[in-house]
Formats: sequence, structure tokens, C-alpha cells
Amino acid sequence: MNARDILKRAVQCDKAGRILEAQNLYQDGVQILMKIASSHINLKKKTVLYEHIKQYIDRAEEIKKRVDDLVVVGEVVKRLRIENDSTGNSYQSLFGECLDGKIKEVWLDEPYLQHDYQFQNLVIFLELVVKKCRNLKYIRLVNKTYRNAAQYQLNILEGLRADLGSRGINFAIRVDETLHDRRIALSNGYIIKIGRGLHFYKRNIPEYSLGYNDADFRKCLQTDLEIYRTKDFIA
Amino acid sequence: MNARDILKRAVQCDKAGRILEAQNLYQDGVQILMKIASSHINLKKKTVLYEHIKQYIDRAEEIKKRVDDLVVVGEVVKRLRIENDSTGNSYQSLFGECLDGKIKEVWLDEPYLQHDYQFQNLVIFLELVVKKCRNLKYIRLVNKTYRNAAQYQLNILEGLRADLGSRGINFAIRVDETLHDRRIALSNGYIIKIGRGLHFYKRNIPEYSLGYNDADFRKCLQTDLEIYRTKDFIA
Repeated sequence: MNARDILKRAVQCDKAGRILEAQNLYQDGVQILMKIASSHINLKKKTVLYEHIKQYIDRAEEIKKRVDDLVVVGEVVKRLRIENDSTGNSYQSLFGECLDGKIKEVWLDEPYLQHDYQFQNLVIFLELVVKKCRNLKYIRLVNKTYRNAAQYQLNILEGLRADLGSRGINFAIRVDETLHDRRIALSNGYIIKIGRGLHFYKRNIPEYSLGYNDADFRKCLQTDLEIYRTKDFIA
Repeated sequence: MNARDILKRAVQCDKAGRILEAQNLYQDGVQILMKIASSHINLKKKTVLYEHIKQYIDRAEEIKKRVDDLVVVGEVVKRLRIENDSTGNSYQSLFGECLDGKIKEVWLDEPYLQHDYQFQNLVIFLELVVKKCRNLKYIRLVNKTYRNAAQYQLNILEGLRADLGSRGINFAIRVDETLHDRRIALSNGYIIKIGRGLHFYKRNIPEYSLGYNDADFRKCLQTDLEIYRTKDFIA
């Protein structure tokens, strides 16, 4: 897409309340416009272009501030310790009640995506949100990259991007090498924090026993869960 | 267990309406008693023993007849074709509505248990019935054995037997080398027949895409499903 199309879509998303996606699109559009502006010789055209750019940057910043404010402030609505070796802790059991048809955007900070079991957990999470959030349009995943598994990681995430894309869901992958904390932010205003992120299940032993597929039967590692309720992103 | 304990448990199960388990226990007990009887020299004791044996055999036959009658007769309550490449066909979606707290016994005829994906399907089926049938006490699996995978098959099924046993569910594995038709019979009176048995899911491609874990996202092979309603086993 060219800058015009990207920014047109940014405005559409913005109006539709899909602000995470809008934020990314504004940033992408601005980057392209900056390149065009810097190559212009005509000073007048350049100035007009920079004015446009400034508007888009301002709007992206405005969204960023709103989202940043939202995802740190909130009232605790659920707090529990997942005990070592406990069961009954599928994602559905833990936070399925927060997932609904109002959700258009999901933001997942999950730095640890390197091993097969970690990708499995990611897919299980995605299956759940896709199934329960029928109006979902956008998922932002922020993760770290792993030198020894970078291509493998990329292949899997790109495969997921294609799959979600075919279901009308834009899956944006962002890299932040300094990321540590895990967080799930839902555009209906719920923030879910789990100490170990998505990865608190023990290996199923023997492999073919209950828990192979249904995580409610799977034994867990100890970790803490907190769910916060903030305002809707699109308040 | 000795014959006395086995037959005591058979009578208990019989009284509790767990007739599939009772049937197996009567048969097991009778086999041991027959050995004992044949080794007796005292004719009087022998005769008393044979009288006991006859009672147990009669009762086992009575149950067999009742169960056989039940699992072939019934009114169709659901009939559908699972189309090639269709989705939304998890076991839960297809026949989850038949599973309830009244079920004490489940009888699964599934000849094809040889490959990993087939054991995976079996575990998914077991997870569902264990989760939804809170009073489940007994599962009878009838399957074929495979010369090239016999030990592997046995290890997996024994692992499942130990796992289910630890949850208070007796998992009885019976071999019938002539078995072809697949069938699930529930002690609340539902009979589920699927042409391909448990194995109608296509491979998930790419592996890490929706459908990896949640079978509702998985594409299917064409097969027909029929659900019959008979009387409760314990009518």
C-alpha cells in the first residue's frame, strides 16, 4: 500500500475505534511520507506535506498516550495464585469471562516465543480469542527475537499471520528486545497479567494422558494472575 | 483380586446400574471360578460351585442381551454429513449435548488406534467425556491390535488406564480383531455412530495455525454422523 492508502485506512480504523491498528498505520504512513517529503525540492509542497505529517504524528501520539494511560491504570477485578501442580487453569477457565463480542483489538506482550511448547501456547491463546471475540480485527504481538531460532520463529509467526489474515484479522508482529513483562490488553478494557505469561503449564506425562489437549487437566507451575478493569480503549 | 472379590464387585456394579463393568466382572470372575471348579476333586463342592457359576453366567448373559438390544435399536435424533474441508466439527460441537452427569459408563468401539494422531483423538475424546460426565466410572474400549505397533499401542493405552484409574474411572481395554464399525454408546441411552469413528480430521497445515488444539478450527474429511436415542442401560 502507498502512504495515501495506509493513512486512509488509519483514519478508518481510528473512527471505528480500532486504535491499536490505527496507531500502527499512522506510524507506517508517516514513515513513508517523511521519505517522500525529504526528497521533494519544491519548498511549498514540502511544507504542505510536513503539515500533514505533523497531524498524523500528533494523532498517533494522542492514541499512544491514551492507550499507555489505560493499560497501566485500572481496578483489580480478579487476583489469584496458580499453585504448583494445580489443575483447572486453562486460559478459558482463567480469563475466558473477559472475552466477548465487544473486543476489536488484542495486544499481547509475550517475550518468550522460541520453543515449540511456547508456540503451542500462543496458538491455544489465539484459538480462544478468535472463537470468543467475533468482532476481533487486530492482534498486536510484541515479542523478542532469538538469534538461534530467529528464522524458525519468523516462519511460525508468518504462518499465523496468514491464517489470521484469511479470517479477517490483522496480526501485527512487533519486536522489542528489552521486553520482559507479560501482558494481555483487550480493547473492552480488561488487562490480564500473569507472572509467567502464557507459559505456566508443565509437560504432560505421559504425553497421551488427560491434559494432552485440554489444558484444564494440565498441571501448572506456580504463578500469579491479576485481571484489571480499565476503561474501553474507545471510551 | 480373587474370584470372590471380583464377583462381589460385579454385584455392586450391577446394583449401581454400571452394567458394562458388571458384565466384564462377571465374566472375569466366572473364568477364575471355572478353573477352581475343574481342579476340585470333591464332587459335592464341585456341584455347588458350578451352580454359582451358572448364576453368574446367566446374569452376564442377561446383561449382554439387554445391552445388545439397546445398542442396535433406537430412534435417530441427529443425522448430518460432515462435509469435506468443513470446520466446526469438534467432538464437543458434534455430540457434546449428549454428555451429562447421568452417564456412568461409556463404550467405545474404535478399531483404529495405531498412529499418533489416532491416540491424540482418543485422548481428546476422553478429556471431553471425563470433563462433562462427572459421574463416569467405567469406559470400555474395544479395539484391534497392530502387529507392527502392538507394544507402542499397549504402552499408550496402559498409560491412559493408569491416568483414568487415578480419577476413579476404570478403563477396560478389550481386543476384537474382527471389529470394523465404530460406535460410541453412552449409558444415558445415546448411541453415536460416525463412519470414520474418531478420525475424520485433516492434518493441520501449517502445524501452528488455528486448529492445532481446538478441533472446531480443523478441516475435516467427509463422513456421516448419526446419533440414536435408546433407553438408558439401567432402564
